[in-house]
Amino acid sequence: MQQRSEETRSRILEAAVKQFAVNGYGKASVDNICEQAGVSKGAFYHHFQTKQDVFLALLDGWLQIFDQAVEASKDQPVPETFQQMTDYFPYIFESASDNLPMFLEFLLQASRDDKVWQASIAPYRRYHKHFASLIKKGIAEGSFVEVDPNLAARLIVSAAMGLLLQSLLDPQGAKWDKVARETVQLMMNSLVREEN
Amino acid sequence: MQQRSEETRSRILEAAVKQFAVNGYGKASVDNICEQAGVSKGAFYHHFQTKQDVFLALLDGWLQIFDQAVEASKDQPVPETFQQMTDYFPYIFESASDNLPMFLEFLLQASRDDKVWQASIAPYRRYHKHFASLIKKGIAEGSFVEVDPNLAARLIVSAAMGLLLQSLLDPQGAKWDKVARETVQLMMNSLVREEN
Repeated sequence: MQQRSEETRSRILEAAVKQFAVNGYGKASVDNICEQAGVSKGAFYHHFQTKQDVFLALLDGWLQIFDQAVEASKDQPVPETFQQMTDYFPYIFESASDNLPMFLEFLLQASRDDKVWQASIAPYRRYHKHFASLIKKGIAEGSFVEVDPNLAARLIVSAAMGLLLQSLLDPQGAKWDKVARETVQLMMNSLVREEN
Repeated sequence: MQQRSEETRSRILEAAVKQFAVNGYGKASVDNICEQAGVSKGAFYHHFQTKQDVFLALLDGWLQIFDQAVEASKDQPVPETFQQMTDYFPYIFESASDNLPMFLEFLLQASRDDKVWQASIAPYRRYHKHFASLIKKGIAEGSFVEVDPNLAARLIVSAAMGLLLQSLLDPQGAKWDKVARETVQLMMNSLVREEN
C-alpha cells in the first residue's frame, strides 16, 4: 500500500515536469497533471494540496542532488571534502539539457511568487554559508591559505551556478562534469597550502 | 530627421522591454508594442522586420555592456586589463532586479528558438575565447603563473554568469558590484606571479 502510494506520488511529479515544461507553470492545471499521470484527483489531493505544492516538491527534489554533494563526507580534511564533492558531478550534469525548461520555470516562478522565491533563494544562501564555514575550517586546520572565507564561498557558489547554467544552455559546448571537476581542482590549487 | 528616427527606435525598444516583461515574449505583439510606444506600424517596420528582430536588438544592446567591459583597455599588462574591467561593474549590476524578467525571456527564447539560441550562446563562447587568450598573453608576458588558460577562462565566465544570475534573483542579498570586484581580486591573487 505504502509502495503504491509512493508510485502514485512519483507519477504525479513526472507528469507535472512534463506539463510545466510543455505548457509552462501558468497554463498547467491539476486536471492536466492528473490526466497525464493517469491518476484520480482524489489521489492527487491525497499527496498535494495545490499545483504550487507539486512545484515546490520538484524544486526540493532537484535541490536534494546538490545537498547530497555539498554534505558529502564532512569528517575529513577540507581539501578531501571538496574532492569528494566532485564524485557527484556526473550525476548533477547528467541530461542537463532536458532540465533547462524546468530550471527556467523555477526562476520565472521565483520572480513572480514570494513563496517560490524564498524556496529558491534560501538554498543559495545556505550553500554560501556552508562553503564559508568549510573554508574557515580549512584555514583553521592549516590545509588552506588565509583567504576571506565569505568571498571564496561566493566564488565557489557563483562558479557552480554559472557552470550549471552554461551546461543547461549549451550541453554540447563542453564536457561539463569534467570542466566542473577541473575547475574545483584549479580553485583548490590556489586555496591549498603548498606545504600540504 | 536622423535624431527623430533614433528616438523612435529607442521608444520601440523600451516599449518592447515592458511588453516582454509583463506579457512574456509569446503574448507580446507588434500591435501592443506600437501602442505602448505611441508609434505607427509604418514607423515600426521602418526599423524592424519582425518582433524577433526587436528581441534580438534588445539582446544585442544588453551584450554591448559586457562587450565594453571585456574589450576594456587591452594595451596594458594583463592584470591591469582585468582591473579596469571592474570599472564597468557598477553599470552592469545597476538596477539588476528590473532586468530579471528580460534575462529570463532571453533564456526561454534561447531554449525554444534556434536563431535566438545562436545569438545567446555565441557571446559566451566569444567571452571564453577572449579570456583564454588574455590569460595566455598574461603568461607570455610573465605577469601570470602557468595555468591552463582554457580552464581559467571557464572559471571567469562561470563566476561572472553566476554572480549576474544571483544579482538578478537576489538584488538585496549582497552589494553585487562590490562582491564582483572583490572576486576578480581574489582570482587575480592566485593568477598573478608573486614577484610582480
